[in-house]
Amino acid sequence: MSFPGKGGGRGQVGWLDCTRGIPYSGHDMSGIDRIISDLCVQTESKIVLLVMDGLGDLPQDGRTPLETADTPHLDRLALEGACGLTEPVSMGITPGSGPSHLSLFGYDPMHFQLGRGILEALGVDVEVGPDDLVARGNFATLQDGLITDRRAGRIPTEKNRELCRALNQELAPIEGADITVYPGKEHRFVVRFTRTGLRDALSDADPQKEQKPRAYTEALQPEAQDTAALVNAFLDRATEILKGRDRANTVLLRGFARYPDIPTMQERFKLRPAAIANYPMYKGLAKLVGMEVPEVGPEISDLFSALESNYSEFDFFYVHFKKTDSTGEDGDFASKTEAISRADTFIPRITALKPDVLVVTSDHSTPCGLKSHSWHPNPFLIHAEAAQPDLVSTFSERACSQGYLGRFPAMNAMALMLAHGGKLKKYGA
Amino acid sequence: MSFPGKGGGRGQVGWLDCTRGIPYSGHDMSGIDRIISDLCVQTESKIVLLVMDGLGDLPQDGRTPLETADTPHLDRLALEGACGLTEPVSMGITPGSGPSHLSLFGYDPMHFQLGRGILEALGVDVEVGPDDLVARGNFATLQDGLITDRRAGRIPTEKNRELCRALNQELAPIEGADITVYPGKEHRFVVRFTRTGLRDALSDADPQKEQKPRAYTEALQPEAQDTAALVNAFLDRATEILKGRDRANTVLLRGFARYPDIPTMQERFKLRPAAIANYPMYKGLAKLVGMEVPEVGPEISDLFSALESNYSEFDFFYVHFKKTDSTGEDGDFASKTEAISRADTFIPRITALKPDVLVVTSDHSTPCGLKSHSWHPNPFLIHAEAAQPDLVSTFSERACSQGYLGRFPAMNAMALMLAHGGKLKKYGA
Repeated sequence: MSFPGKGGGRGQVGWLDCTRGIPYSGHDMSGIDRIISDLCVQTESKIVLLVMDGLGDLPQDGRTPLETADTPHLDRLALEGACGLTEPVSMGITPGSGPSHLSLFGYDPMHFQLGRGILEALGVDVEVGPDDLVARGNFATLQDGLITDRRAGRIPTEKNRELCRALNQELAPIEGADITVYPGKEHRFVVRFTRTGLRDALSDADPQKEQKPRAYTEALQPEAQDTAALVNAFLDRATEILKGRDRANTVLLRGFARYPDIPTMQERFKLRPAAIANYPMYKGLAKLVGMEVPEVGPEISDLFSALESNYSEFDFFYVHFKKTDSTGEDGDFASKTEAISRADTFIPRITALKPDVLVVTSDHSTPCGLKSHSWHPNPFLIHAEAAQPDLVSTFSERACSQGYLGRFPAMNAMALMLAHGGKLKKYGA
Repeated sequence: MSFPGKGGGRGQVGWLDCTRGIPYSGHDMSGIDRIISDLCVQTESKIVLLVMDGLGDLPQDGRTPLETADTPHLDRLALEGACGLTEPVSMGITPGSGPSHLSLFGYDPMHFQLGRGILEALGVDVEVGPDDLVARGNFATLQDGLITDRRAGRIPTEKNRELCRALNQELAPIEGADITVYPGKEHRFVVRFTRTGLRDALSDADPQKEQKPRAYTEALQPEAQDTAALVNAFLDRATEILKGRDRANTVLLRGFARYPDIPTMQERFKLRPAAIANYPMYKGLAKLVGMEVPEVGPEISDLFSALESNYSEFDFFYVHFKKTDSTGEDGDFASKTEAISRADTFIPRITALKPDVLVVTSDHSTPCGLKSHSWHPNPFLIHAEAAQPDLVSTFSERACSQGYLGRFPAMNAMALMLAHGGKLKKYGA
């Protein structure tokens, strides 16, 4: 049996609100989401949230990677702290990186939704601001008026870069909008339109199937008609520029999204937050909620150096460790185990800073057997002076299932961190 | 101390929306209820949900019936799978069969509510469609203009059948509506009115107390006035037909309800669902959410034969085992224990089919000591390739409380089943 976790959420179906970039899904904020802002106070205490991306897993030969890895420091934290399992969105739901991080940052992921185009843009390090509209693009092949290959034969990434350079050179502003394209991998790119008043209630400009004519975008609300005209003029102009090329001679666009209007962590939680991450998408996600994003080198050790050098400047640190996810996506149990053991060796550099609150968890599970994100909950530990010690003495999925915190929504972790950091007032008299 | 679980849900108070048959209670759908439909994909994988009705119980001499019964096959499933406890509606809430099943079928039971008349009609196997209005009836005694016995001395069921035959023979259509009465037990019956445009915003036509005059229904909304006139004409006509009989010489009606407008499981979850049940009410509940209801014989073994013979036709099977509830209602600990042991012997017939996902749970608890439904949560196990094995090695209330799944809303079981069956896409990018 296969699990659609990996490919899911990328199509039009099921993510319709998100491809339109509507941050409010119609799902009311949860109760805690409504009341928490009023309870927050700024203090000097420091919180470190270490996210080991995709950490949760399933056993192979009886043990998970986390159960197999050598983790004396994490186990010590589990022994001294309180443990549990987090549910990123809701039971059974496999989250993308957007919702799984938003919930850890204290935002209800069913209320705050991110457009696909935004995630794609963050992933290739495109700066997105309030006047921007972004979308995911494909180079495609047009022959005798029909799209014959939606991926232009998966052209090499190098070719893609050359095409984007050509487009950026020849594209002049259209209808007052600045337009830039950014290469991704193979046939994929991101386009950014910049002009005030752009809307994202737009249908995909993608015939979805081959042997069909080019598709234009349509406004899904009357207010989006100007934007649709702009996008369609871009589609024609890009096709004109690419004319004569053998494979990549037109473009398709989908997942139109504006910068989501999410209250910052400063506003919501009175925090001064920083993201210590070395991958663009996670830095981008952090920026969406108002985190500062200091420079971090590409190595794992660079994360901890950056944490140390920025430690006096902020009071909340999101540290993102990627390797546990990428090894899970590769289905490489041994490498994932090794990545966990390696991460463990850096824990003393965190504890040496004596943060008032240290949380170690994952944003979602990425079981090696599934080679994709999954719906399984995440091991979670909180280490703080006032953490209630439980019976858990090792850090693992199974051990955490016996922990004091039980199985709880990941979005509640923020209140827990704030509370243990002395940053939450009493609710009610 | 006595517990009102048994009689609860039948009165006017607290069930007001339901006696009006309003399927939407005003309680917003939960977040997951809103997003899940968009994530579902149809696949070939098979899900079996075995509901052992009223299974959950309390210990007598230290052990519950489930802890006492001989359950090697269920224990094996618990050992290999993941366990937990489900909350049918909310902590402390004793559910009727309607909400407890709706939640297992993946419908928020505080959002989707079923009129009492509908449940009563399903229980006596009355077909109910969109043009029907149903209500629960009592035969009653009228003397000198006052209701002197609301239950007509609890006339024998045989007498009830004879009265219903007489009514059905003599009743002509009233105001263009077809009217049929269906006998229940003792003094109880169900009446069905069929005409387009009927409304169920009607007060009970029942004085509630004896030594009061007959009561007519009143429209609770202006749109229901035509319907009220029809019902009141029926009340007069039935009383006329029954005139002269000594005890059962009039009727009372309450719990007016139309067919609830609930999206089907096909629509919501892209499933092809079948109910394998041998009691009318459970078949009826299953039909309400769009399940097919193949023929099933009256014996326990017939359930499993029907599962086998229909296995290729569907991808979701709700199998309903009644005996654990009826023995609980009787307060018969030994018989309930025996029923559980007997159910266990049939588990190999399910596992032989190699379903991708097998869940065993109950809809609600029916502790023998209480002789009624109760608010206690239900033991739950899920057996599937990607189920996270936990430390639970026997299937019982207490063992499940230590399980990996924790204590969770029963309505989340559907997402869990779909996820383990590979039928859910990723949420968000």
